[in-house]
Amino acid sequence: MKQIRPAPVPSAQATDPIPSWNDTVPKQAIIAFVEKVTKEGSPDFVPVAERIAVFDNDGTLWPEFPMPFQLAFLFDELKRRTPNEPKLAADPMVKAALAGDMAKLFAGEHHDGLLRIIALTHTGMKTGDFQARVEAWLASAKHQRFGQPYDQLTYQPMQEVLRYLRANGFKVFIVSGGGADFMRVWTERVFSIPPEQVVGSTARTKFELSDNGPVLLKTVEDPFVNDKTGKPVGIWQFIGRRPIACFGNSDGDQAMLQYTTINNSHPSFGLIVRHTDAEREYAYDARAPISGKLVEALKEAPQRGWSVVDMKNDWKRVFGFGQ
Amino acid sequence: MKQIRPAPVPSAQATDPIPSWNDTVPKQAIIAFVEKVTKEGSPDFVPVAERIAVFDNDGTLWPEFPMPFQLAFLFDELKRRTPNEPKLAADPMVKAALAGDMAKLFAGEHHDGLLRIIALTHTGMKTGDFQARVEAWLASAKHQRFGQPYDQLTYQPMQEVLRYLRANGFKVFIVSGGGADFMRVWTERVFSIPPEQVVGSTARTKFELSDNGPVLLKTVEDPFVNDKTGKPVGIWQFIGRRPIACFGNSDGDQAMLQYTTINNSHPSFGLIVRHTDAEREYAYDARAPISGKLVEALKEAPQRGWSVVDMKNDWKRVFGFGQ
Repeated sequence: MKQIRPAPVPSAQATDPIPSWNDTVPKQAIIAFVEKVTKEGSPDFVPVAERIAVFDNDGTLWPEFPMPFQLAFLFDELKRRTPNEPKLAADPMVKAALAGDMAKLFAGEHHDGLLRIIALTHTGMKTGDFQARVEAWLASAKHQRFGQPYDQLTYQPMQEVLRYLRANGFKVFIVSGGGADFMRVWTERVFSIPPEQVVGSTARTKFELSDNGPVLLKTVEDPFVNDKTGKPVGIWQFIGRRPIACFGNSDGDQAMLQYTTINNSHPSFGLIVRHTDAEREYAYDARAPISGKLVEALKEAPQRGWSVVDMKNDWKRVFGFGQ
Repeated sequence: MKQIRPAPVPSAQATDPIPSWNDTVPKQAIIAFVEKVTKEGSPDFVPVAERIAVFDNDGTLWPEFPMPFQLAFLFDELKRRTPNEPKLAADPMVKAALAGDMAKLFAGEHHDGLLRIIALTHTGMKTGDFQARVEAWLASAKHQRFGQPYDQLTYQPMQEVLRYLRANGFKVFIVSGGGADFMRVWTERVFSIPPEQVVGSTARTKFELSDNGPVLLKTVEDPFVNDKTGKPVGIWQFIGRRPIACFGNSDGDQAMLQYTTINNSHPSFGLIVRHTDAEREYAYDARAPISGKLVEALKEAPQRGWSVVDMKNDWKRVFGFGQ
């Protein structure tokens, strides 16, 4: 009887787990880290339950230039609603937003103008209705420069890292300054990251049992801004343990990079994506207009051993759609 | 050549998935629900990603009589610390606690006395130090009546339900009024529920980068009480989608039972554990001394189709240890 040979198991060399990366230092560092912590019997081995990886979203998994996509959503919502809502249209901050007056909107430490617009437009909205608005926007709006729906603009190299980590037993979380309610609508479809693995900025909802069943109404009470030192705070509150891998792109990610990599009892990994590619994406770093400024975290990177990705040189392609 | 037959797949009848339950109505309802939502091609089928089940902890997965275990921890900590901390010992609320004056401690809508003790004992503590204290307590303290370490007092029938649901693709969360930081220390070991699947009461931590690396310090700021209508709010904030199964034991669970079962687009399941067994555990329901009062949720159960477990009649055994 003829013996049937099993197909050879592809080796790491044979099957490139992250093919959209050039074979430069960051790619080698990612693969070396994953191989190290998954090697049973090695002193660097990390049990599956503790393979927690956290990813910033805006600027790390998709662009945040010239503004975070959620801000584009907010402005498009204002454009859609103001013709039928004169009271909303008359608000000075709404007028500033529609006129593109970012300086006014982002003035003050807490961006009071922006928060006012969120309060005006979101308060009292059912969570389900908000989700439906986000879906409708994603189905119709297109990014001005790339002419694609926003959720098609994810970075292909990072999608591959997400898959590679998951295939190696990692549990992957988004830890973003963006609104949790905004992100959770599409993260499962777009990144295979379920809502319960999305840590974002939040405010409380209010529970009511209406005639049509239970509803949760959005409020702006107890706001939590999941950015800067808020990121490790959010990680603790929502995940409850320390990550071993952290991916970001701006000074907003510096604290969670520190939390992940400094004096961690496990081997750990930090990575910063630098926006250096004006041709295929954008080049800005320190000159970010609204969000995504990268200065301090970049300075700290060599000391901490964080990998720094130069998008232009380290990524074979940027997006999944044909460019 | 002799043909090798595969071993027969055990049927639900052959292998009892929850053997510590008597064959009464609640057991039948649990099994019928799980079989219904996992049957591919059926209109009641629920995709794996949406099989979210939430469990209250105190009184549902382990006892909360005569007081929640976390309160026993807090009192034991006071007994341990006050001999060496005269300022702490001199506080009137600490004195009330050590004298067992629950009325004073729990006075007011927000239990100001209790909150004061938490503020006095927890503020500024590193999260890691707090975890170590909880571990040390669990390793030494024993429940007065049962003479067992507290974490040995989980309900065997509920442990079986947790396993049964997980084996059927459910993702299981604890949604408890207890402190998230307290529960997450032991839920993985005791219930196989990882920290990131524990939703509890929280306050913010504060991130600091000290000479010894990053630390998170406990504060009592931005408190969130994950009880009553706070439970669906916590579910939305931490999980971000609606559960299809909910297990509780008190009026504190009523809102999340409503949120899970009323007008859910999926088939759903609600269950209330009644404490009716003075011999093997406790019998109290409406007469709960500190927490776990069950009146309103029990009244609502028939209308909503929630299963009501009579511990005395429906559970073959209560605890895992030999009774």
